[in-house]
Amino acid sequence: MRDWRDVHDEAAAADAADPLRHLRGRFALPEGVAYLDGNSLGPLTHAARDAVRRCVDDEWGTGLIGSWAEGAWVDLAARAADRIAALIGAPPGSVACADSTTVNLHKALHAAVSLVPGRRRIVSVRGDFPTDRYVTARVAADRGLAVRQVDAGDLPGALDEDVAVVALSHVDFRSARIADLPGITAAAHAVGAVAVWDLAHSAGAVPVDIAASGADLAVGCGYKYLNGGPGAPAYLYVAPRHAAAESPIPGWFGHADPFAFGEAYAPAAGARRFEAGTTPVLGMTALHAALTAFDGVPITGLRRRGMELTSRMVDLTDAHLAPLGVALRSPREAAERGGHVMLGHPRAQELVGALAAGGVVGDFRPPDGLRFGLAPLYTTRVEVVRLVRELAGLLA
Amino acid sequence: MRDWRDVHDEAAAADAADPLRHLRGRFALPEGVAYLDGNSLGPLTHAARDAVRRCVDDEWGTGLIGSWAEGAWVDLAARAADRIAALIGAPPGSVACADSTTVNLHKALHAAVSLVPGRRRIVSVRGDFPTDRYVTARVAADRGLAVRQVDAGDLPGALDEDVAVVALSHVDFRSARIADLPGITAAAHAVGAVAVWDLAHSAGAVPVDIAASGADLAVGCGYKYLNGGPGAPAYLYVAPRHAAAESPIPGWFGHADPFAFGEAYAPAAGARRFEAGTTPVLGMTALHAALTAFDGVPITGLRRRGMELTSRMVDLTDAHLAPLGVALRSPREAAERGGHVMLGHPRAQELVGALAAGGVVGDFRPPDGLRFGLAPLYTTRVEVVRLVRELAGLLA
Repeated sequence: MRDWRDVHDEAAAADAADPLRHLRGRFALPEGVAYLDGNSLGPLTHAARDAVRRCVDDEWGTGLIGSWAEGAWVDLAARAADRIAALIGAPPGSVACADSTTVNLHKALHAAVSLVPGRRRIVSVRGDFPTDRYVTARVAADRGLAVRQVDAGDLPGALDEDVAVVALSHVDFRSARIADLPGITAAAHAVGAVAVWDLAHSAGAVPVDIAASGADLAVGCGYKYLNGGPGAPAYLYVAPRHAAAESPIPGWFGHADPFAFGEAYAPAAGARRFEAGTTPVLGMTALHAALTAFDGVPITGLRRRGMELTSRMVDLTDAHLAPLGVALRSPREAAERGGHVMLGHPRAQELVGALAAGGVVGDFRPPDGLRFGLAPLYTTRVEVVRLVRELAGLLA
Repeated sequence: MRDWRDVHDEAAAADAADPLRHLRGRFALPEGVAYLDGNSLGPLTHAARDAVRRCVDDEWGTGLIGSWAEGAWVDLAARAADRIAALIGAPPGSVACADSTTVNLHKALHAAVSLVPGRRRIVSVRGDFPTDRYVTARVAADRGLAVRQVDAGDLPGALDEDVAVVALSHVDFRSARIADLPGITAAAHAVGAVAVWDLAHSAGAVPVDIAASGADLAVGCGYKYLNGGPGAPAYLYVAPRHAAAESPIPGWFGHADPFAFGEAYAPAAGARRFEAGTTPVLGMTALHAALTAFDGVPITGLRRRGMELTSRMVDLTDAHLAPLGVALRSPREAAERGGHVMLGHPRAQELVGALAAGGVVGDFRPPDGLRFGLAPLYTTRVEVVRLVRELAGLLA
């Protein structure tokens, strides 16, 4: 017990000295819970709670249809998109906020295939997030292309002039390994292909400089590290140079002038043409407000804090969990890791359940993964210590 | 003034005797406002307000990721879908609730085209809702089909064995004219085509018996007469006989077992395969709760009340507005009209603005339309009188 006391006290002292410690106050986290699952569902912010209440009671309840005309809602998606753009290094107007990640990936892949006609293949990564693989397979089939799945490390060697699109996640949802965003993009461009990235498990935890990376299109999720709420709207980035990129779903909210009810479809400028139907206002309101949790936060400081958290977890795992049969399934080098840490143990499902019953919330990922998101906006070092200590206790 | 007093008193007496008058109490309508725009955005219900608050504060704020595992959210879309199914005469499991109407129409049309391979044309209706026309044109182009737009009355004559799909709205968003759902569907089937219906301006105001109609697929909107909130999730119906119908967006929430993270896509049974990404929980919560406003309401009684409201408006228009240059742009026969009434006047935009400033809220529809939704759940006869009286006053 003496050891754990020291480990805890050192962590608490480091938390107290942390220049970003005030950010946790932006979240309405339940008392006593170590919530280490913000990579699955980000927690509620005070800003989102207040904004949704205002939206329901005042904008919808009282303002009614006038809240469209009077501007509370009509550019809400564009304002949320611009906040996301700032977070991922995208110029204003190059991000659309709409629909789910799945639907946006469908749009992005169809648009990408059309940018490179006459090619035969989409290359993707084996073991990527399921919805990405399902959508990629279907777009390929519908466009007469084959899919070649490779391990991430084998990507550069899999590229040739038959490849239309390279599609993969920036951070792997299981291992948290960071893929080389600019490097793989450059390799795709070298063979005349385009690169479509899924930022779901990176943006908000890992610096993303999407414009500088050269990426052609990207999609991402609103409800993980962006804390937009369950099933929050997702986003789509399209490089400004791709003025010809077209959404396969030309909905009225992607029209240059939706409320003119025009005869022919005229796409909006920039990424907004990738909006489809009416903005989902409740979810968009939560996301738009939640993004203020990043206000004034230097992304380099956030990344430094995130690496410190995951490194601490790796070190504690080595010292206390490895001897109990727990495997580290994430990269050992902090620079290669995103915001979560994956562990492996044959009793993973039972252990995740027991941890949650004790107030330490992580994720079970079949078949034997224990996944913990250490969100740099609010996770504390003391929570990491608590996790490892309780897990060690369950295994001892 | 004597005339208007009598007209008002008669309406008030009829309101007071109305067996459905208690339904208005389910809505949080602002004091003093005659909200005649529920066909654009349904008003807030007490049930939706309370449910969203619980969802944000308790399910998201406190329950966090556990609200997926513990069931508050995982079948929320299916439960909302089954409430909609009950409202439109669809068997349980034949409706999916997800995405926007636009995205659902994209899915439905692609699925429909695949059901009838080798044909050359989609037939749609001139002047249908813009997003429907844009999406139809794009799906046709992407599938190598032509689009033929006809006037609704000319539909049967436009059908031949080159036609793959007939796609149209059940109730026209401008005129409120009700299309012959079973008749046009049967005519489509007679030439081997499939019928895809948009119920956005009908369901919730007009009885829809979608299964009995024989329709193949249908989509509809959550935020109009269903009162689901701004940008609420939409829905998609697929006839149970079309077990082969496939969504072009095979997302993980349309998978038979989403949380197994399976290697290959295996579609869920029934309509649920048309879900795509993660359920948009905030919007779905509002819609699911708002649908309780229909609890215990006989659809025939609701329709009778709706026809009485629009007939009263037509009669008052004839008596007081036609002499002032206002044209009736909706069918004169109640049975041919949906839940709204369209008027025409050269100063429409200015008049709608002046009415709204006085607390009577309708819609301007370019170029010269004044559109008023008389939602049978909550609109009163007195509100209809107030509208016509104030409009007459503005024109006098």
